[in-house]
Amino acid sequence: MAHDVLLLNGPNLNMLGVREPEVYGADTLQDIVAKVTAHAGDRAVISHVQSNHEGELVEALHAAHGTRAGVVFNPGAYTHTSVALRDAISACGLPVVETHLSNVHAREEFRHRSLLAGVCLGVVAGFGWRSYTVALDGLLAHLDAVAS
Amino acid sequence: MAHDVLLLNGPNLNMLGVREPEVYGADTLQDIVAKVTAHAGDRAVISHVQSNHEGELVEALHAAHGTRAGVVFNPGAYTHTSVALRDAISACGLPVVETHLSNVHAREEFRHRSLLAGVCLGVVAGFGWRSYTVALDGLLAHLDAVAS
Amino acid sequence: MAHDVLLLNGPNLNMLGVREPEVYGADTLQDIVAKVTAHAGDRAVISHVQSNHEGELVEALHAAHGTRAGVVFNPGAYTHTSVALRDAISACGLPVVETHLSNVHAREEFRHRSLLAGVCLGVVAGFGWRSYTVALDGLLAHLDAVAS
Amino acid sequence: MAHDVLLLNGPNLNMLGVREPEVYGADTLQDIVAKVTAHAGDRAVISHVQSNHEGELVEALHAAHGTRAGVVFNPGAYTHTSVALRDAISACGLPVVETHLSNVHAREEFRHRSLLAGVCLGVVAGFGWRSYTVALDGLLAHLDAVAS
Amino acid sequence: MAHDVLLLNGPNLNMLGVREPEVYGADTLQDIVAKVTAHAGDRAVISHVQSNHEGELVEALHAAHGTRAGVVFNPGAYTHTSVALRDAISACGLPVVETHLSNVHAREEFRHRSLLAGVCLGVVAGFGWRSYTVALDGLLAHLDAVAS
Amino acid sequence: MAHDVLLLNGPNLNMLGVREPEVYGADTLQDIVAKVTAHAGDRAVISHVQSNHEGELVEALHAAHGTRAGVVFNPGAYTHTSVALRDAISACGLPVVETHLSNVHAREEFRHRSLLAGVCLGVVAGFGWRSYTVALDGLLAHLDAVAS
Amino acid sequence: MAHDVLLLNGPNLNMLGVREPEVYGADTLQDIVAKVTAHAGDRAVISHVQSNHEGELVEALHAAHGTRAGVVFNPGAYTHTSVALRDAISACGLPVVETHLSNVHAREEFRHRSLLAGVCLGVVAGFGWRSYTVALDGLLAHLDAVAS
Amino acid sequence: MAHDVLLLNGPNLNMLGVREPEVYGADTLQDIVAKVTAHAGDRAVISHVQSNHEGELVEALHAAHGTRAGVVFNPGAYTHTSVALRDAISACGLPVVETHLSNVHAREEFRHRSLLAGVCLGVVAGFGWRSYTVALDGLLAHLDAVAS
Amino acid sequence: MAHDVLLLNGPNLNMLGVREPEVYGADTLQDIVAKVTAHAGDRAVISHVQSNHEGELVEALHAAHGTRAGVVFNPGAYTHTSVALRDAISACGLPVVETHLSNVHAREEFRHRSLLAGVCLGVVAGFGWRSYTVALDGLLAHLDAVAS
Amino acid sequence: MAHDVLLLNGPNLNMLGVREPEVYGADTLQDIVAKVTAHAGDRAVISHVQSNHEGELVEALHAAHGTRAGVVFNPGAYTHTSVALRDAISACGLPVVETHLSNVHAREEFRHRSLLAGVCLGVVAGFGWRSYTVALDGLLAHLDAVAS
Amino acid sequence: MAHDVLLLNGPNLNMLGVREPEVYGADTLQDIVAKVTAHAGDRAVISHVQSNHEGELVEALHAAHGTRAGVVFNPGAYTHTSVALRDAISACGLPVVETHLSNVHAREEFRHRSLLAGVCLGVVAGFGWRSYTVALDGLLAHLDAVAS
Amino acid sequence: MAHDVLLLNGPNLNMLGVREPEVYGADTLQDIVAKVTAHAGDRAVISHVQSNHEGELVEALHAAHGTRAGVVFNPGAYTHTSVALRDAISACGLPVVETHLSNVHAREEFRHRSLLAGVCLGVVAGFGWRSYTVALDGLLAHLDAVAS
Repeated sequence: MAHDVLLLNGPNLNMLGVREPEVYGADTLQDIVAKVTAHAGDRAVISHVQSNHEGELVEALHAAHGTRAGVVFNPGAYTHTSVALRDAISACGLPVVETHLSNVHAREEFRHRSLLAGVCLGVVAGFGWRSYTVALDGLLAHLDAVAS
Repeated sequence: MAHDVLLLNGPNLNMLGVREPEVYGADTLQDIVAKVTAHAGDRAVISHVQSNHEGELVEALHAAHGTRAGVVFNPGAYTHTSVALRDAISACGLPVVETHLSNVHAREEFRHRSLLAGVCLGVVAGFGWRSYTVALDGLLAHLDAVAS
Repeated sequence: MAHDVLLLNGPNLNMLGVREPEVYGADTLQDIVAKVTAHAGDRAVISHVQSNHEGELVEALHAAHGTRAGVVFNPGAYTHTSVALRDAISACGLPVVETHLSNVHAREEFRHRSLLAGVCLGVVAGFGWRSYTVALDGLLAHLDAVAS
Repeated sequence: MAHDVLLLNGPNLNMLGVREPEVYGADTLQDIVAKVTAHAGDRAVISHVQSNHEGELVEALHAAHGTRAGVVFNPGAYTHTSVALRDAISACGLPVVETHLSNVHAREEFRHRSLLAGVCLGVVAGFGWRSYTVALDGLLAHLDAVAS
Repeated sequence: MAHDVLLLNGPNLNMLGVREPEVYGADTLQDIVAKVTAHAGDRAVISHVQSNHEGELVEALHAAHGTRAGVVFNPGAYTHTSVALRDAISACGLPVVETHLSNVHAREEFRHRSLLAGVCLGVVAGFGWRSYTVALDGLLAHLDAVAS
Repeated sequence: MAHDVLLLNGPNLNMLGVREPEVYGADTLQDIVAKVTAHAGDRAVISHVQSNHEGELVEALHAAHGTRAGVVFNPGAYTHTSVALRDAISACGLPVVETHLSNVHAREEFRHRSLLAGVCLGVVAGFGWRSYTVALDGLLAHLDAVAS
Repeated sequence: MAHDVLLLNGPNLNMLGVREPEVYGADTLQDIVAKVTAHAGDRAVISHVQSNHEGELVEALHAAHGTRAGVVFNPGAYTHTSVALRDAISACGLPVVETHLSNVHAREEFRHRSLLAGVCLGVVAGFGWRSYTVALDGLLAHLDAVAS
Repeated sequence: MAHDVLLLNGPNLNMLGVREPEVYGADTLQDIVAKVTAHAGDRAVISHVQSNHEGELVEALHAAHGTRAGVVFNPGAYTHTSVALRDAISACGLPVVETHLSNVHAREEFRHRSLLAGVCLGVVAGFGWRSYTVALDGLLAHLDAVAS
Repeated sequence: MAHDVLLLNGPNLNMLGVREPEVYGADTLQDIVAKVTAHAGDRAVISHVQSNHEGELVEALHAAHGTRAGVVFNPGAYTHTSVALRDAISACGLPVVETHLSNVHAREEFRHRSLLAGVCLGVVAGFGWRSYTVALDGLLAHLDAVAS
Repeated sequence: MAHDVLLLNGPNLNMLGVREPEVYGADTLQDIVAKVTAHAGDRAVISHVQSNHEGELVEALHAAHGTRAGVVFNPGAYTHTSVALRDAISACGLPVVETHLSNVHAREEFRHRSLLAGVCLGVVAGFGWRSYTVALDGLLAHLDAVAS
Repeated sequence: MAHDVLLLNGPNLNMLGVREPEVYGADTLQDIVAKVTAHAGDRAVISHVQSNHEGELVEALHAAHGTRAGVVFNPGAYTHTSVALRDAISACGLPVVETHLSNVHAREEFRHRSLLAGVCLGVVAGFGWRSYTVALDGLLAHLDAVAS
Repeated sequence: MAHDVLLLNGPNLNMLGVREPEVYGADTLQDIVAKVTAHAGDRAVISHVQSNHEGELVEALHAAHGTRAGVVFNPGAYTHTSVALRDAISACGLPVVETHLSNVHAREEFRHRSLLAGVCLGVVAGFGWRSYTVALDGLLAHLDAVAS
């Protein structure tokens, strides 16, 4: 039976593929969502939300409560500044996988601290767009293990 | 073609399954290695090293240089204290995935800092023994992408 | 004469009573607003705004300028991260009581720091939903004292 | 039924009303105790202790164990320096409300840290002498809720 | 040839001229925009956006990508708390001048740190509303120099 | 009427144009002073002092007291280490604009802290030699506003 | 020959056995003193002082100068806050053993720092009431060694 | 006319001359008070209080309000830990000179911070018992200047 | 019945008695082990391991699991740097007493922090070689109390 | 016999009396030197050096070696930033009294730290120009005591 | 007479010349040892130890006690993390020169702190493999000076 | 061919040999310069500058640009406080060896931090006056290697 999974993306990720494709790749966020959906196959039903607004991301997590089985969440810059999202992850009561395209630990010092990871199921970072599929596989394995 | 992958485990991981199986699960490290090997199938040839000695882990990374394509590495407690392993990861010149059974960010403050992640390809944490298979999938996807 | 008081609630407080009633109580935010309104009696006219958006909370404080006599404000997670709300409290020129359901000092370290309290009239925390009525009584006593 | 409540005041509060009445108000501590007692009415029996000695405040909390139902406590400067009082609050086993006349968060940096709040029921600050009546109301509401 | 320049204002700046004109001056934000536009003359076409929402400011920067030549940006309180805006400045690929009415270094300690300045072209602060015209002149000189 | 303005330059700025012109530009400090003087036109009379000595810069500010209307000051490295210059800026009683060629916030961490900005009128940084003309325009606008 | 030893106990230790015997044990401080005295046998003459007052503890150390051979001292909360006791330990010129019932390093962060240990002979912690007898044995062995 | 001056000494200063006269000198505190009184001559009437109790020192400052013209205060170890004494100095409304026998800046790091100096008239340290006479002369000069 | 106790010594302790006997005493580590064994008498069977290798100390703790009743452990320099030993202490599931010859709190600042004490039963320091016998007595008292 | 004493003044002190006499007093530095010389009478021969240059102050201390008996030194802003002066104080081998007009502890945080006090004989601050005479008296008393 | 000198190399230095010769040079560690030996000529007898194990390096220092006259030591990554090596340097009682190929101060922040330098004779860094010969010359000059 | 090398000495080094020869040695700075010159032989032409003025040291580095091949620089106290010298080292474009007589890492904490080392070629410390010859040899080896 397929799991309902929310793929949630935070600020600036809508710019993927729009600017400097020679640097960040030609894939737009829509392309990546399509790849993740294909990767899920019949194991999961993927719904996708992207927002640059902290409040909308909070509300997307609220809406997932009772309607989704888990969340693959790339919080972008809010990873490092948002206690509101930390509380929303706790409030939604779902397993959430914090996911990053890049290896945040190889970037500026302030990106090494996550306010969210402590209330998540786990963390995946550094595999480019494949971070999403890796995170999804981890989440699904967890959901299957809990269900069994 | 299968990739040669080193599965490397740090201090205290040899105690998995030995003590308090009702808490940590009945799987020994050997059981987990078997599961990872099975998960790899014909995509990867898994060799495994576990050591409680920082120096032996350094040397296992040296030995991987030129003989392995990548490393799935659970450095255990050395994650937070070893600059020698950081330098060894740089020296071996391979993509290394820092991997943890538990979500280190939900534990003591001193476990939130990794001295190694900054020179790794990426990080996976929080999925129990499945962290290894998730990390392996990420590594293999990376190796395939680089090869293509 | 009744004072016009804004009851302002920040992120995630809309989830009160929705999830885990056995833990957080069966009262929804609407129930609590009703209790506060009843408690105010003819001493105050209570208007209520809840938002998960930092910007909307800023604008609710702007709107209170010139139309309300004071504010009972539970900023939730934004207590610890929002300079914008600090500036909005200063800008609205009203007495604001920072109010929390729980005793934030008994929770995680990062919840001990308030960016807002320094520009508020006062602080009330730790009495559950009764924090609102206690804060309201304090605010009204202040308004009466200023008026007299 | 009336609750036995200890009103406990720390160092320098005996100087209220003695010096600079044009600044701090003409009310002496005795005047304020009388106002709080009147405010309590038949809801609570108020006993009052003021001391400039950390040790005497510790012992007042010990004495409250088994004889009082709760404490409204303005620890003054000891708020920021006394672990002994923290342990005494824990030892007395009563709900204690940390209470301040001024908004300590609007004063010097070192007054923003409380060593006591983490083991108290709650905190009230910033309403001048009315902080005591606000804190008392919060404490009585809590005692009534626990009793029911 | 005139440059297309975005004048971008962050939280609480819509309150300029609304409250305490004897303190902050009688100029509303609209008045200031008019003065900046007049100052630009035929050297620049000024478009103006003000928002109290971090997400809307992020999106205004996204929208400037490919449509504007540069940005004069007063981020207000978000200067000190927003990594999302830092990433949006990087993502828009334009020269941005961080601009403040007041000299932030003469105010509270937490206003001395900018999360944004490191990815901006430059900084202007302390000249009141003239900070905007000074910043604009600096930006136009830069654009002319790059163009030549 | 022209304002008497001191253009003051700190340590190492005498090396501009001397070394690596392909990197820093061919303009010497003398060239830049000439450009600033030309830019001032009849709005200001520019006098120029450069010194590598903290004490001479202190004394140049003393000498400006009563003889100049304002100062455009690039303190170079002393920005980050000199309390003596901070006190001299206060002592001279003139509006001083802290000015930097580069965007100091995009450089080493220790260059992000200014010991001087808190007692200056304002700050301009990041526009290359045009920082001086931008700063001068801001200073002159301020002097005109004060005079009117 | 028996050594004269002062057993000195700080704030809140008079509450041992009084509250929550099921948690802290039924032994009162008097019971424990009796056990320590019995343990000493004819090796030491034990005198005991307990006080909740920092000043009285200071004076007990002064009084020990010239009249006692050493001190077993459980400073309780003053361990972490009292420089006065540090100076008193130095002033009394005796070997003092800092002693704790619980393992302070397994408790709150602020209990990990001792202001006193640096001027003591040694430290014993974590053995419950047996910490006193262990500390006494260490002190007596030291006194015997010095005497021989 | 003679000024009434309180000479106030904090914890452990009663041990002067009692222990290790070859190190600290043979003068007892009483000897020093006599020397200070003689030094005052008819310029000041010296009353002396020494206490090891923070609370008694607080109360000595309270008692000085309205009865003394100024205070020469050696707070000993409480210099570094007592906010209560800071508040008492403010409350007594008198000029207080913080005085130390030794140069505290040449001792342990924690003795470099004074919680009291910020609310005192001035500081004298490092002249041995002569620090008291130096501080007294400074206080008297101040009192004379204010009186004239 | 005798308890099986592991006496475990960390790096550099094998140098005791080898160098500078006039400073550190003439006792070699072997001498000390003999004294501890004699002290234990028939109360405990002492086995001894010393290693300069963090990994060997980890493995000695692993080996103690199921074969020993408790550990007297002097971790030497690893006290301050080894998370691996912290995890090994937790993994072995035995009561461990952290033991030091010297009073580490009277030495360099970095020796005041223990990474291990938080997961130990208790701490003994400062009694020279007698620290081992004091620690052993504490451990045996604990084991007897648990057994009874 | 008169002592040769160097009165040494650091940066910006030459501006005393020059600017804002209604704030800082009408006394110029020369006036103050005259007062100090008069105060010294035949007890000391005062020579005076003022410099805004750190290097000249260093050299004034060098020159005092072998020619002066002690130094009254107001280092001004260099108090907080100069290790060179610290070394020069040590190198000159004389008793130096760090002297300040104002109470530096009541000013900005960065003025609370002295890099020099640790190698001085003592510190005097807060008595206005009388700080010099107070410091001189302390120095002379010290020189007399050493000489006797 | 030739001095017996230990050349000691820490973790990862065995990889010199093995990987990326175009970056790090074609010299292997063996080549460098040969160059140092040749440089020593008949002034010193060089013995060489390299290890990736902290414990083996500790023991190499122990073994040098009584058999070598001094040590040229490149501790590699252990420079920044090993208190055990610090203690071993103290224990061996020999002059040790901390030596680095690269200028560690120009690399990551955590490489700027040495736990070892404080107990070494001196430090040499930044000359590539010539750092070893420079350090050796300094050590030999020291040994000759001590011997003469 | 001989290299032109600047030997540059900072503050207080002119006092070498002048004071306390029994402590610091009888060598004056002139003696040491002579020894270094003799050591250089025909490998280098040594010119020497000593100054106590930060600004003169800055200018000595400027003057070395284009006229010298490298610098042996003992910055003394300015090592820890001067950003101006850091920038001057960068500006002169020469290899500079930071050199210290003593092992700064064995002295006060604030001497462990160098603001200069990060832009130098390398560091030599701890060999007394021989540090200069060791540093010179390292510099010459570097210059020869670059030249070849």
